[in-house]
Amino acid sequence: MNFKKEQRVKRIAIIGIGYIGLPLAVEFHKFYKVTCYDFSSKRINELKNKYDSNNENDLSKLNKNKINFTNNKSLLKGNDIYILCVPTPVLKNKKPDLRLIINATKITANHMGKNSIVVYESTVYPGVTEEICLPILEKISNLKCNKDFSIAYSPERINPGDKIHNIKNVTKVVSASNKRALKIVDSIYKKICLAGTFKAQSIKVAEGSKVIENIQRDLNVALMNELSIIFYKMNIDFQDVLEAANTKWNFLNFKPGLVGGHCIGVDPYYLTFKAKTLNYNPKIILSGRSINDNMHKEVLIRVLKKCKEHNISVISSNVLLLGASFKEDCSDFRNSKSVELYNLLKNKFKKVDFYDPLVDHNDFIKKNKIKLKKNIGNNKYNVIIIAVSHKVFLNMNFYKKILKKNSFIFSIKKNKNKLDEINL
Amino acid sequence: MNFKKEQRVKRIAIIGIGYIGLPLAVEFHKFYKVTCYDFSSKRINELKNKYDSNNENDLSKLNKNKINFTNNKSLLKGNDIYILCVPTPVLKNKKPDLRLIINATKITANHMGKNSIVVYESTVYPGVTEEICLPILEKISNLKCNKDFSIAYSPERINPGDKIHNIKNVTKVVSASNKRALKIVDSIYKKICLAGTFKAQSIKVAEGSKVIENIQRDLNVALMNELSIIFYKMNIDFQDVLEAANTKWNFLNFKPGLVGGHCIGVDPYYLTFKAKTLNYNPKIILSGRSINDNMHKEVLIRVLKKCKEHNISVISSNVLLLGASFKEDCSDFRNSKSVELYNLLKNKFKKVDFYDPLVDHNDFIKKNKIKLKKNIGNNKYNVIIIAVSHKVFLNMNFYKKILKKNSFIFSIKKNKNKLDEINL
Repeated sequence: MNFKKEQRVKRIAIIGIGYIGLPLAVEFHKFYKVTCYDFSSKRINELKNKYDSNNENDLSKLNKNKINFTNNKSLLKGNDIYILCVPTPVLKNKKPDLRLIINATKITANHMGKNSIVVYESTVYPGVTEEICLPILEKISNLKCNKDFSIAYSPERINPGDKIHNIKNVTKVVSASNKRALKIVDSIYKKICLAGTFKAQSIKVAEGSKVIENIQRDLNVALMNELSIIFYKMNIDFQDVLEAANTKWNFLNFKPGLVGGHCIGVDPYYLTFKAKTLNYNPKIILSGRSINDNMHKEVLIRVLKKCKEHNISVISSNVLLLGASFKEDCSDFRNSKSVELYNLLKNKFKKVDFYDPLVDHNDFIKKNKIKLKKNIGNNKYNVIIIAVSHKVFLNMNFYKKILKKNSFIFSIKKNKNKLDEINL
Repeated sequence: MNFKKEQRVKRIAIIGIGYIGLPLAVEFHKFYKVTCYDFSSKRINELKNKYDSNNENDLSKLNKNKINFTNNKSLLKGNDIYILCVPTPVLKNKKPDLRLIINATKITANHMGKNSIVVYESTVYPGVTEEICLPILEKISNLKCNKDFSIAYSPERINPGDKIHNIKNVTKVVSASNKRALKIVDSIYKKICLAGTFKAQSIKVAEGSKVIENIQRDLNVALMNELSIIFYKMNIDFQDVLEAANTKWNFLNFKPGLVGGHCIGVDPYYLTFKAKTLNYNPKIILSGRSINDNMHKEVLIRVLKKCKEHNISVISSNVLLLGASFKEDCSDFRNSKSVELYNLLKNKFKKVDFYDPLVDHNDFIKKNKIKLKKNIGNNKYNVIIIAVSHKVFLNMNFYKKILKKNSFIFSIKKNKNKLDEINL
């Protein structure tokens, strides 16, 4: 190998400054000079003004001499480490949409140099880094992996909205194409991940470890959804059943609910895509996806049945739908199932007001063509649906003023503050 | 109700003295006079001689004045509480086999009296206690539930082979057909379950809470099996992937493996049967069952492939299959998948020796028509398969003497003591 024996990392470039890239940049800039590139000039301008529209990072204490937000690609030249943190969504047909990661790879290939290490953090199926990205890097850069440069994979474990688990206190899995690169990548992540690192046996093992985490979570929620449907058909309150089951030492406290977002609802399709190319039909994972992808329809069924029980005329009733993001106390509304639920409700009820004070209303209307209510005011509703249990929604006084007589609250998750509510 | 205001429980009858009934009897006899009835005279004779063939209970300190083992039904007369602890297996077509629970119900109905409380501990689908057993009780006894007698359901949470979780330190769910019976049943279980009780909202809720516990476990193992198959097809060591994934705080430490026994591999079919009668096809639960029910075939595939890699001629090779029970360090071999694996191996290899020092060899030959090896002696093997990781199998010295040259050990579970082994 041509690597200098002692390569000291001084400069890190991060491509994609969203939920994953920004916390990395904030931590790394305490030790290295960090260049943050994002395709979105809006995002870059906000970050320059120390504003994180995701409400996840405090940027007020950033050291401007050590961090640079830019959408000028040429500033990516001359970095020691390139960390790619772009989303890996799925296409409408649920196949992996690798366009963003390929594009970020091309940008990197055009700016990296000898001895660079290219680190991927995006969730993928095993093989994407080495079989899809690496050939692009080599071809465009005209450099040879493990001779002129190295690649690495370190899956992100960022949990938006979670104030307990963060980049500092969660173990980080690292892997690389050669031992020297692994040592370097391990050492830089160790500086910011105080919980330590775990060296995976290979890049593919690290890729696999990430995708199965989210599959496991997806399937466990899917099982709760399937059970919720079965117990509903038996006229047994599933929340009561869960409460009893949870008194066993090894029962896992999952709950039925809507599964949206850019991770749990998406990542399983990456592995199932790969499995299918190997002629294996992953029945369990896909049956879980199928239930979770359709759970908003089950919510509609139950709301309509409840209306019937309450003698509420659906076509002349107003509904308030609370929560547009994909998760509690989080502003991210990508692949939010609330949006799909809204579209179903809209076709049934007289009027549906959609309210979420956490998400960016302008962004929301741009992406979903749906106008969120600015405030609830003095409106009265026959049905209130809490799709996402943001803390701001859990005040009973809030509901007293806006509920019509003979109305009901349907909350997808059971809330602890004893709202008089019906649950999934 | 005709109940006496103060009903003091003095005598308890337990019908079915197996894995579930015996520990109950041992604990209850410290407070009550306990009559233990079992259909099997062999079992009753063993218990009278203070021998538990399941190796789960120390009977040496039993107070013979307080406990009576019998297969004389007439001794069941005059008890305050009847606790039914019979197995609830499935038929060959995977439908619930309720014959044992119905038979135990008939025996109880013939011997119970006014004010009796009949408690079910067997795992069932919601409705079995009230819709199937109760009518039988009323018809045969000519008594009326909630007027002359009561019913209750308290699911067993016995975990054979587990020295940590036992009847004393695991919360017990209780439910009953009326408040007074619930109070009584709760008070008697509280005496022996020092971890406390949990009063479920209804008998059906309690029935449901039990069956979903085992479904959750079954499905989580099934997911690991599906993932193991996918990663095997990708040529990635799944044990390495699991090790990396397990460094995340919320990854659930399940492993691929064979799922046998009388609980996890059986109970899900109870709920899926009920779901199907309600026109719901439980795709997730059944796809999990399907994977787990066929995993021994995957083991065969991998063993044969490994033989090919080692140039081992299958038809002229000897195999040693270790472990005939359904679980580590447990003597129970009901629905053991090892037996199915043995039958597959037998058709491929020259000779298959099947060894398990924990199970009762006479019982085993009677039930499975397979003769287990008494000892390994000086035999040499080309392939050793550890189907069940009993502690006695985890000594490397044991293997050194019996492995031929160019042989291998295939262990379904990864063992911690660094055997040189291949895993699922």
